[in-house]
Amino acid sequence: MALLVVGSVALDTVSTPRGQLAEGLGGSAVYFSIASSLFTPVHLVGVVGKDFPEEHISTLETRGVDVEGLYIAEGKTFRWHGRYDEDFGDPETISTELNVFADFSPKLPPKYRDLPFVFLGNIHPKLQLKVLEQMKSPKLVAADTMNFWIERERNTLLQVLEQIDMLIINELEVRLLTGVRSVLAGAEKIHTMGPATIVVKQGAYGAFAMSDGEIFTIPAFPTTAVMDPTGAGDSFAGGMVGYIARQGNITPHTLKMGIVYGSLVASFNVEGFSIKSLEKLDMETLNRRLEKFRKMTEF
Amino acid sequence: MALLVVGSVALDTVSTPRGQLAEGLGGSAVYFSIASSLFTPVHLVGVVGKDFPEEHISTLETRGVDVEGLYIAEGKTFRWHGRYDEDFGDPETISTELNVFADFSPKLPPKYRDLPFVFLGNIHPKLQLKVLEQMKSPKLVAADTMNFWIERERNTLLQVLEQIDMLIINELEVRLLTGVRSVLAGAEKIHTMGPATIVVKQGAYGAFAMSDGEIFTIPAFPTTAVMDPTGAGDSFAGGMVGYIARQGNITPHTLKMGIVYGSLVASFNVEGFSIKSLEKLDMETLNRRLEKFRKMTEF
Repeated sequence: MALLVVGSVALDTVSTPRGQLAEGLGGSAVYFSIASSLFTPVHLVGVVGKDFPEEHISTLETRGVDVEGLYIAEGKTFRWHGRYDEDFGDPETISTELNVFADFSPKLPPKYRDLPFVFLGNIHPKLQLKVLEQMKSPKLVAADTMNFWIERERNTLLQVLEQIDMLIINELEVRLLTGVRSVLAGAEKIHTMGPATIVVKQGAYGAFAMSDGEIFTIPAFPTTAVMDPTGAGDSFAGGMVGYIARQGNITPHTLKMGIVYGSLVASFNVEGFSIKSLEKLDMETLNRRLEKFRKMTEF
Repeated sequence: MALLVVGSVALDTVSTPRGQLAEGLGGSAVYFSIASSLFTPVHLVGVVGKDFPEEHISTLETRGVDVEGLYIAEGKTFRWHGRYDEDFGDPETISTELNVFADFSPKLPPKYRDLPFVFLGNIHPKLQLKVLEQMKSPKLVAADTMNFWIERERNTLLQVLEQIDMLIINELEVRLLTGVRSVLAGAEKIHTMGPATIVVKQGAYGAFAMSDGEIFTIPAFPTTAVMDPTGAGDSFAGGMVGYIARQGNITPHTLKMGIVYGSLVASFNVEGFSIKSLEKLDMETLNRRLEKFRKMTEF
């Protein structure tokens, strides 16, 4: 089933111990939509400036992403400049230029309003609410958020949590949101705030999920080939929600397999700068890694 | 098959956010032997002082641990006093009194010399070598070490690595030993130093193993019931090596199941102070958790 994603579209300048890339295609909606397009039709809502290179639009279209909802506004595209050090942990932000993204107010093309699956990238929670107001009756709404909104827009975020089915966040965000350090206890607390399903991204350690009291947890696919971790979380979410949307339903089984696929898609994403590795990924390559991963984790 | 463990036997005073216990039974050889005694006969080599409570010896004997190699020396028992904070990470050491452990020089009872499985706790690498000199031809030698020896006794430790089959260490120790941050790359580097099998303990994140190029990795069993993390690593090693010793051979399958059992034994251990939870553990309870864990991780 088709999928709506709303989030940032950016030009990222990134340096890591393995190299650097200036003004590569980035942003949460981009990583999410390229990842999810492996599984299902994807419709993107976002904003870029007049300076946004035509080739990046082609990249999205080549992957079958519908960009009717990608608005081209007067001004410059959102830019982020970051640097990762040796441990490939959280990047140091060198600069952020919001540009046209500062005035982003998502307005959905009419045909997007009855899409059955929705992913809200980590935009302002009031914009996430605005997207939900425009939707008819989606089957599944998944959302991401970030430390900034948890700390500064907590009440609005709590309204979002009441309306979504799935929250996809990282461990630090679990702690900020709940005050609890245990991922399990934190997920239980978030469940009382609204979402039936909580998926916790643990970076190089894998992922943890709680859904209606059932727990699922996997390690990460081990790799030494990390080039650029940017977009790992969004490509994980894209792989996961994309897989579930393709199956048409969230069940314990589709959630599990979605998390595994999401994790593996993210493991490919980090093996290249920007979307360079992700855009070449096909199901055959992904399924080969799935079999390897199964062998590494099965007992 | 029977198992030899050489390591510390201690009286631990521990405080955590969940409580405290003064002078509880502790030490690497204790956690290891109680854990491994679930699976196989265990013979312990260590030293305590005249003040060591008789009841602790009974505790070991009740679990079938052979304490013929536990020497009672003039002086006081090794004592450690530590405190864990809210995140249950590395403890703060408040005091360490080596006492009789300062002069520990393992001398094996003759009947121990042809035991087929050996675990060397994180004692001085020169003492680890001394144990190996006394052994006839063990089938499998596994060893632990610690940051202190990696930094100060590197050359002696490298001699140990050349003689052992399996190294069981944590992530930080992998970095200190290899200078590499990736667990996978670190394990590959350690493999060139000698051990055919490298098992990396990742605490709340699970475990990673590399053996003859094959990789196995699992998340940790999620729990909110952590009381006292002391001995998690040694009870993990005890469960793992104990399981493998019971099967009589290390194969890809026994290594995998050993790691799973070790991880689950450790998950019980941390649910009580000292060995309180571990000493009550039986195979039926452990296998119930195994089935839960399988359900949480299978895809």
